[in-house]
Amino acid sequence: MIVVMKAGTPEAEIERLSQEFVSMGLEPEKIVGRHKTVVGLVGETADMDALQLQELSGWIEQVLRVEKPYKRVSREFRHGEASQVFVSTPDGAVPFGEHEPLVIVAGPCSVENEEMIVETAKRVKAAGAKFLRGGAYKPRTSPYAFQGHGESALALLAAAKEASGLGIITEVMDAADIEKIAEVADVLQVGARNMHNFSLLKKIGAQDKPVLLKRGMSATIDEWLMAAEYIMAAGNPNVILCERGIRTFDSRYARNTLDLAVIPVLRSLTHLPIMIDPSHGTGKWEYVPSMAMAAIAGGTDSLMIEVHPNPSKALSDGPQSLTPDRFDRLMTDLAVIGKAVDRWTDSPLPVLA
Amino acid sequence: MIVVMKAGTPEAEIERLSQEFVSMGLEPEKIVGRHKTVVGLVGETADMDALQLQELSGWIEQVLRVEKPYKRVSREFRHGEASQVFVSTPDGAVPFGEHEPLVIVAGPCSVENEEMIVETAKRVKAAGAKFLRGGAYKPRTSPYAFQGHGESALALLAAAKEASGLGIITEVMDAADIEKIAEVADVLQVGARNMHNFSLLKKIGAQDKPVLLKRGMSATIDEWLMAAEYIMAAGNPNVILCERGIRTFDSRYARNTLDLAVIPVLRSLTHLPIMIDPSHGTGKWEYVPSMAMAAIAGGTDSLMIEVHPNPSKALSDGPQSLTPDRFDRLMTDLAVIGKAVDRWTDSPLPVLA
Amino acid sequence: MIVVMKAGTPEAEIERLSQEFVSMGLEPEKIVGRHKTVVGLVGETADMDALQLQELSGWIEQVLRVEKPYKRVSREFRHGEASQVFVSTPDGAVPFGEHEPLVIVAGPCSVENEEMIVETAKRVKAAGAKFLRGGAYKPRTSPYAFQGHGESALALLAAAKEASGLGIITEVMDAADIEKIAEVADVLQVGARNMHNFSLLKKIGAQDKPVLLKRGMSATIDEWLMAAEYIMAAGNPNVILCERGIRTFDSRYARNTLDLAVIPVLRSLTHLPIMIDPSHGTGKWEYVPSMAMAAIAGGTDSLMIEVHPNPSKALSDGPQSLTPDRFDRLMTDLAVIGKAVDRWTDSPLPVLA
Amino acid sequence: MIVVMKAGTPEAEIERLSQEFVSMGLEPEKIVGRHKTVVGLVGETADMDALQLQELSGWIEQVLRVEKPYKRVSREFRHGEASQVFVSTPDGAVPFGEHEPLVIVAGPCSVENEEMIVETAKRVKAAGAKFLRGGAYKPRTSPYAFQGHGESALALLAAAKEASGLGIITEVMDAADIEKIAEVADVLQVGARNMHNFSLLKKIGAQDKPVLLKRGMSATIDEWLMAAEYIMAAGNPNVILCERGIRTFDSRYARNTLDLAVIPVLRSLTHLPIMIDPSHGTGKWEYVPSMAMAAIAGGTDSLMIEVHPNPSKALSDGPQSLTPDRFDRLMTDLAVIGKAVDRWTDSPLPVLA
Repeated sequence: MIVVMKAGTPEAEIERLSQEFVSMGLEPEKIVGRHKTVVGLVGETADMDALQLQELSGWIEQVLRVEKPYKRVSREFRHGEASQVFVSTPDGAVPFGEHEPLVIVAGPCSVENEEMIVETAKRVKAAGAKFLRGGAYKPRTSPYAFQGHGESALALLAAAKEASGLGIITEVMDAADIEKIAEVADVLQVGARNMHNFSLLKKIGAQDKPVLLKRGMSATIDEWLMAAEYIMAAGNPNVILCERGIRTFDSRYARNTLDLAVIPVLRSLTHLPIMIDPSHGTGKWEYVPSMAMAAIAGGTDSLMIEVHPNPSKALSDGPQSLTPDRFDRLMTDLAVIGKAVDRWTDSPLPVLA
Repeated sequence: MIVVMKAGTPEAEIERLSQEFVSMGLEPEKIVGRHKTVVGLVGETADMDALQLQELSGWIEQVLRVEKPYKRVSREFRHGEASQVFVSTPDGAVPFGEHEPLVIVAGPCSVENEEMIVETAKRVKAAGAKFLRGGAYKPRTSPYAFQGHGESALALLAAAKEASGLGIITEVMDAADIEKIAEVADVLQVGARNMHNFSLLKKIGAQDKPVLLKRGMSATIDEWLMAAEYIMAAGNPNVILCERGIRTFDSRYARNTLDLAVIPVLRSLTHLPIMIDPSHGTGKWEYVPSMAMAAIAGGTDSLMIEVHPNPSKALSDGPQSLTPDRFDRLMTDLAVIGKAVDRWTDSPLPVLA
Repeated sequence: MIVVMKAGTPEAEIERLSQEFVSMGLEPEKIVGRHKTVVGLVGETADMDALQLQELSGWIEQVLRVEKPYKRVSREFRHGEASQVFVSTPDGAVPFGEHEPLVIVAGPCSVENEEMIVETAKRVKAAGAKFLRGGAYKPRTSPYAFQGHGESALALLAAAKEASGLGIITEVMDAADIEKIAEVADVLQVGARNMHNFSLLKKIGAQDKPVLLKRGMSATIDEWLMAAEYIMAAGNPNVILCERGIRTFDSRYARNTLDLAVIPVLRSLTHLPIMIDPSHGTGKWEYVPSMAMAAIAGGTDSLMIEVHPNPSKALSDGPQSLTPDRFDRLMTDLAVIGKAVDRWTDSPLPVLA
Repeated sequence: MIVVMKAGTPEAEIERLSQEFVSMGLEPEKIVGRHKTVVGLVGETADMDALQLQELSGWIEQVLRVEKPYKRVSREFRHGEASQVFVSTPDGAVPFGEHEPLVIVAGPCSVENEEMIVETAKRVKAAGAKFLRGGAYKPRTSPYAFQGHGESALALLAAAKEASGLGIITEVMDAADIEKIAEVADVLQVGARNMHNFSLLKKIGAQDKPVLLKRGMSATIDEWLMAAEYIMAAGNPNVILCERGIRTFDSRYARNTLDLAVIPVLRSLTHLPIMIDPSHGTGKWEYVPSMAMAAIAGGTDSLMIEVHPNPSKALSDGPQSLTPDRFDRLMTDLAVIGKAVDRWTDSPLPVLA
């Protein structure tokens, strides 16, 4: 922390403040400038609130933070190395990471019935996906909208898993459901609307399954990383970060603004793997192929794409879903970019078993 | 819902689509314009998703919603009348509402120890507040920051309640805590970060204590009202809406942008009472008096103001807290505006017992 | 400026960098912390770009600015005193400022014909306004929309001025029009869309009439003050700052988000007078009274309110205009708040002649 | 336009309103729904303001627009075909368009001296760029910052053009400078801060050189297209649209949020060519390669990249500039993606002469 004093601060006040810093276990170091004095604070300041420090004296003009607020998620925590997150699936463990092949996750917004989820699983598996996404519990803006089939949908996901060999990713909305979801799911998803639900983050961090953490719709990158820090601090190091579009001033055409620049930004800040969701990120299936291609070229480690056998009849988020046929064609296009950047594997088998 | 067809849509397609609408229980009514045909859908369309309907045909250009998505929270639901929310306190029931005196809620961000919370309670009571705010469970961006004293803080709130006669407002972060919090609190608060936590909304709607619903930091007014609809749909009609600042592109001086225009907007849309929180809304105590005055003149029904006996030592949010002395002076100023708009009562006793 | 070096920076690199700072005319002062070294730069750093400095060495982690980027607009520039901006009108000079009575500006979005502008002028004068607003040149999103009557409208404004005794405020969109507009107008307005038009700011700063500077729709407070700095640096000290709503994620009900917290924020940063425009700020006349009342209680020095004799026939911005009758009623309500905060004068004559 | 009447509107009022619509030259067509009546307006409604219409009766609940506000820029205007914009350069005409090879524009933020601009021009030409960017007139937030060398910089651009054979793109900030800039420049740029400067748009539309229109930092896609419509309506059909990042709630790491989804969105709405500027779009050179790759894979027609021989000494925007060496390496990487999507030409000569 760096404390900037106002011009004209009496020497005695700087002295008093320095004593106060010492009593807080900090070592103050002073620079006397031409107009202003600046006090650097040496010691454990990561948990301190800059604004709070400012209250210590009316003579303080500004308090500037030098340290990053997160530790375990930071790239430095792993000495600059990317981490790999291995997820077990019926067909073997699949690694997510900067130096791993691209992982494709596909499936419907919500699990509607056995036929649709099994069919979708088989189709996306055949096209090259490694994971099936599908909601059993759905966060919906309206209490009157379809809320997911809940527990019974979990059984359908289990059936799809068995039929296809795909790993399962599904959302946890309520900490009370973690245990039963974890029986079926290989990755537990925290949705954008719960990124700031710290109670849930702590509990999901206290279990063993890897976690997919979606960015809150108006979360800063620091807040997103701090949410991941909650999970890691609770004991679970296997976190994948998923960008799904942020809220901005224009949602007339694309429902959200897909912030692809998080790819290089996160790469420099954290060791955790990155996933991009162009389906929620744009809200329209017509825009998905372009943004999926862009995400791969931009360096993402993984993609999550909505696929539904009949989008016009989908119980949720149909407009952003591709049909299985369109998904097949998209995978062909993605392979071209994936190979160009050397992140594609044609093998239908995971690279690691 | 109004379905706008593209120019040149074949008559047969409009016919087919109309059949589909009929099969969904809707009555389609057609306007054949000069260039385009428009189909009005009569029937129960409130739960339908406009984008979803659009998937029914590639010839659909746009689907426009005519109805509001919420029912119970709407002003029409009470035939244009404002609702009153009565909250019991040791000193009698206090009404919140458009035609009631202004209600002042004050207290620290978090409950730190018995002395500070009891002292604060007495001071704000003496100055005219009817409720004490104070967090036992605190949502914090960092897992390493003070998370509130939890259950033991509830006992301290109970002590402050008894000592002062004030009603208690405190936040619920985890549905598992509702019961024990409700033993002490007179109003359960849903914080901004949980406004989209639908599991919590349903459970808090299923209990009896009045609910203070803070606006999510990037929630639209419709989303905020839909969150209130979740609580009302679950059976609890006693909801107070609290604006606490939204997230915008500029947070250099004020931490959030306090959206005071919600006062006239909400007044026209809903019957529910309105509270403004200028402390979180600006993030700096220096800006609180101006915005508190503005809120009263603008027509708020209630104010929530942070007060801490020693802001520089506060364990959370000190910079936005007034000292008790500053709060005394502010109440004097607020009374001037409150009386000018005829919403102020000097009586230290609630108007209703 | 404060330069934070990365942990592990070689001593020789800090030495080299320090030489570089000296060659730039700065005095570097070093704090060696436990993990990091910080270099404070003493000297003329106000014009330097923090990001630019960072390019000087790959070992620099961060450059933090200590100084404010503006000078002439800052409160310190006038030793903490508020400035008064005097504007001449046919009825005498009217002062704008923190310690002056509230000034009301009213009138239509655009000047449509002589009858309407003269009638409006007389009505708003009778109700207590001191200035008539009215656009001769109108910024319109569509090239096909009414662009204002231009030069001929200036003659109508002159007629209204003579008929009413009101001062005239009108917008300059093109520097080529300054001279002819200044013949009629008492205050030249720079609109929100031109707040970043630096060519115009320089030219308007080089003439003598007072300037009303509207905030750009996504301008930060610092950018807004820097735009004022452009005008003052060009020689014109008579600038009034007008908040007219910013662009945020929600424009469903209110067209913009009126940022009333600029009142206390600007008060602490600048000596310049403040105006609030609740008409553009909300976009609906129904919301104008509440926000006008709030602005006065919050401490504004001036209000700009749209009034049109027949809003449904207005050639621009009708929906946000009050009728003269509604304006009369609003002025009665505003007087109540204005008197409560001691900023109201009943005198139809300006306080200064 | 579709006019939704409130529930319970008297038949007589609907009748009166219909008469009014007829008197405005429109044909009203009525749908009587179960609760509400809806009136469709047939005729020339493109220039009408929805909010304005709403003022015609207090019984109107909502007015919904069916038509797009722009004409000439719309894809339909060219019957679904993309347009080509040909720009002459010393080496021949270069086409911009959906079916053309990718065009790379590179160069410094501002022209500093002859040596640097000529050197940069030669280096980026050798690497495959077709155009040199470089500012003679610079929009700067601070009046005290370097404002560009103005007219003398134009001579330097002319020298660089002659030395390299590259076309020149430079910004116009003041309509008074158009003529002299057009003597040197092959493309006139309208910067983000002037996208809403309608006077400038009209004047730049009245001259012949192709125009590069940058998106305003908080402009919606509709507003951006309307700005292009201004230029086309004034007679100039050669407009290229450049995304350069928008303003959102998070600018801690990337200065702006690069909105790459504009690529598929614009493709569906307009026939005009698209350019992406990842340098301004992110504000840091480290992020540029990832976003440049993403833009190509996403389908952009053109890229604008800042290159400076010595970024740490740049007079403006150094931190977002690549060195010529880094630019060389980037071009090698871009070629890989460009070839994968079949938009790359190795030929140093333009495809069209």
